[in-house]
Amino acid sequence: MMDRRGFLKGAGTGLVAAGGVNAPAVIAQPRRFRLNLLTSWPAALDNLYGTAEYFAGRIEEMTDGDVRVRTSPGGAEVGALEVYDAVSSGAFEACHTAPYYFIGKNPAHGFFTALPFGMTLEQQNAWMTAGDGQALWDELNARDNLIAFPGGNTGAQCGGWFNVEINSPEDLQGLRMRFPGHGGRVMAKAGVNIQQLPGGEVFTAMERGALDAAEWVGPYDDQILGMQDVAKYYYLPSWAEPSAMLGFYFNLEIWNTFPADIQAQIQACCAEANNWMASQYLAKNPLALEELKAAGVQIKHFPDSVLEAFAQAAREINDENMSNPDYARIHSSWSAFLERLRGWDQTNSFRYREFIYRDRG
Amino acid sequence: MMDRRGFLKGAGTGLVAAGGVNAPAVIAQPRRFRLNLLTSWPAALDNLYGTAEYFAGRIEEMTDGDVRVRTSPGGAEVGALEVYDAVSSGAFEACHTAPYYFIGKNPAHGFFTALPFGMTLEQQNAWMTAGDGQALWDELNARDNLIAFPGGNTGAQCGGWFNVEINSPEDLQGLRMRFPGHGGRVMAKAGVNIQQLPGGEVFTAMERGALDAAEWVGPYDDQILGMQDVAKYYYLPSWAEPSAMLGFYFNLEIWNTFPADIQAQIQACCAEANNWMASQYLAKNPLALEELKAAGVQIKHFPDSVLEAFAQAAREINDENMSNPDYARIHSSWSAFLERLRGWDQTNSFRYREFIYRDRG
Repeated sequence: MMDRRGFLKGAGTGLVAAGGVNAPAVIAQPRRFRLNLLTSWPAALDNLYGTAEYFAGRIEEMTDGDVRVRTSPGGAEVGALEVYDAVSSGAFEACHTAPYYFIGKNPAHGFFTALPFGMTLEQQNAWMTAGDGQALWDELNARDNLIAFPGGNTGAQCGGWFNVEINSPEDLQGLRMRFPGHGGRVMAKAGVNIQQLPGGEVFTAMERGALDAAEWVGPYDDQILGMQDVAKYYYLPSWAEPSAMLGFYFNLEIWNTFPADIQAQIQACCAEANNWMASQYLAKNPLALEELKAAGVQIKHFPDSVLEAFAQAAREINDENMSNPDYARIHSSWSAFLERLRGWDQTNSFRYREFIYRDRG
Repeated sequence: MMDRRGFLKGAGTGLVAAGGVNAPAVIAQPRRFRLNLLTSWPAALDNLYGTAEYFAGRIEEMTDGDVRVRTSPGGAEVGALEVYDAVSSGAFEACHTAPYYFIGKNPAHGFFTALPFGMTLEQQNAWMTAGDGQALWDELNARDNLIAFPGGNTGAQCGGWFNVEINSPEDLQGLRMRFPGHGGRVMAKAGVNIQQLPGGEVFTAMERGALDAAEWVGPYDDQILGMQDVAKYYYLPSWAEPSAMLGFYFNLEIWNTFPADIQAQIQACCAEANNWMASQYLAKNPLALEELKAAGVQIKHFPDSVLEAFAQAAREINDENMSNPDYARIHSSWSAFLERLRGWDQTNSFRYREFIYRDRG
């Protein structure tokens, strides 16, 4: 906590309005806001943690230094999966994390990262921006004294790392696997022994033999973690995370003290960061996948029988979740929106991809 | 021009720094910027013109009114396809348009909207943000005293409206069709008689019989134009515009007078607008397509023989364009980036879609 106190000292309470204790000359710098931004990421993961840093840099540029953000890696000040509570309580101003880490509090948080067999990147962005997504998220978060905005997306993830071939649903039975979100619950339903671990601990658990398999993100991040050194097979595609949205969360009471223009700038900066992260992953994953192949990793695709087993388990998990009224209400918006967009994609853009890939071979 | 002069009068020259002629009390409002934003869109097209209005509203919120933007429809002050020159010359500060309207000046502008058989929405965003796209665009635009940022995307467009069935490449011969960009040149190579018209004139030309066929955007916009009343068949998908990026252009000399924080805010606002437009189209196109079907429009898909004819013509147009050094240099970045992303999409996200659509039927 020493660093944080030292950082905050310059600003008194974490935000200082005009005339604050350290602003003797008010005219030149009328408003100063200092935000501690916790994250759930190891600093080495430069797309995930880098998005928090990108946000910090951009909001400082946009406000000419009136808003300054100090980022910290998961575990440095608060556990990687404890950041939601730390911001909810007001102990910290903001965090950058994956909403679905908190489905234990309420399964409805899953809609704001990924649901199994759910939305692609463009569909998630559209639901948040032009559908009811943001309003529904606001309502859910406000109960915990939070407000959050889309803060990056990994795009399509991969299915996971295994040391055994998955040729049928039977091959999943009893495997000890790291798998987050509702996807993990689906995996458990399909017979897998699921464990929740932050990204920074996945490699070590695989290396020690405490895990048989693990899902993290995709080629670029997984290569940084070193998964190619502890697993033989890389299964594609991710049925659990066809995209995965992250969020910038703010303590709602603190947020409400920000002037409207600062709120608008922070929202715009989140939108920039949301696109920045998704673009970085799209640019970097293809190169990383080639490097993983060159390093001897065997790329595999789940057979249909396994995907069907996951789809069946996902329907069962969804049915269970529907007893939660928040989940049921949000699911109603989410599923109707997705169904419409799928129809449109299937008849139009998907046909373009089919032609391109047939031509490409 | 009366409105414009009237608007500018309040700010002197279009931008007034601290102490400008109309700022007697500097402390409260030290910086004011007034931008006239031309567009290429009829005001009725509320996703296209609406994106310019969205930008205007958001930048005013972000700057607490220090930046105010007045939008105008195509043709109101400057012809819809003349906006590039009007901003290049400094007669107007900014415009919102489709870069590929200006391939007559340089074929390289096409990369910044759409190339036939080119990038999808997420690929275009990634190339601009995490590839060389923005830097290459900056270089091209600076020669005309312009700077531009991604300013919306229609997402996947449709193939166009026809009153005859297109069962083979022979059916295209001699058709008079509205079709913009390099896609229009491909159509011409395939035997179509191509005409360039702004969106506001497409319906009338079809109704008068001056056109046999027309490509505009997609279900939502095409329905507003009334295409369902003048054409029988709607062909999908668009091979020419698998996505189509628009741009916010600024006169470069004026841009360079903006403080760095205002520049950063405008860029962030463009990023917001870029996502906003793409999300609106994704949300609205599926509903509009259903309404068009209900109104009796027949949805058709181009047969493979026709797509192959377009693909062959596109390769020939590309070869011709490669004699332009700007086109060749940008193509080198664009095509390498696209090839990598296609490999990744084909082995991962595309497989997810195949499974979903097989399951969906």
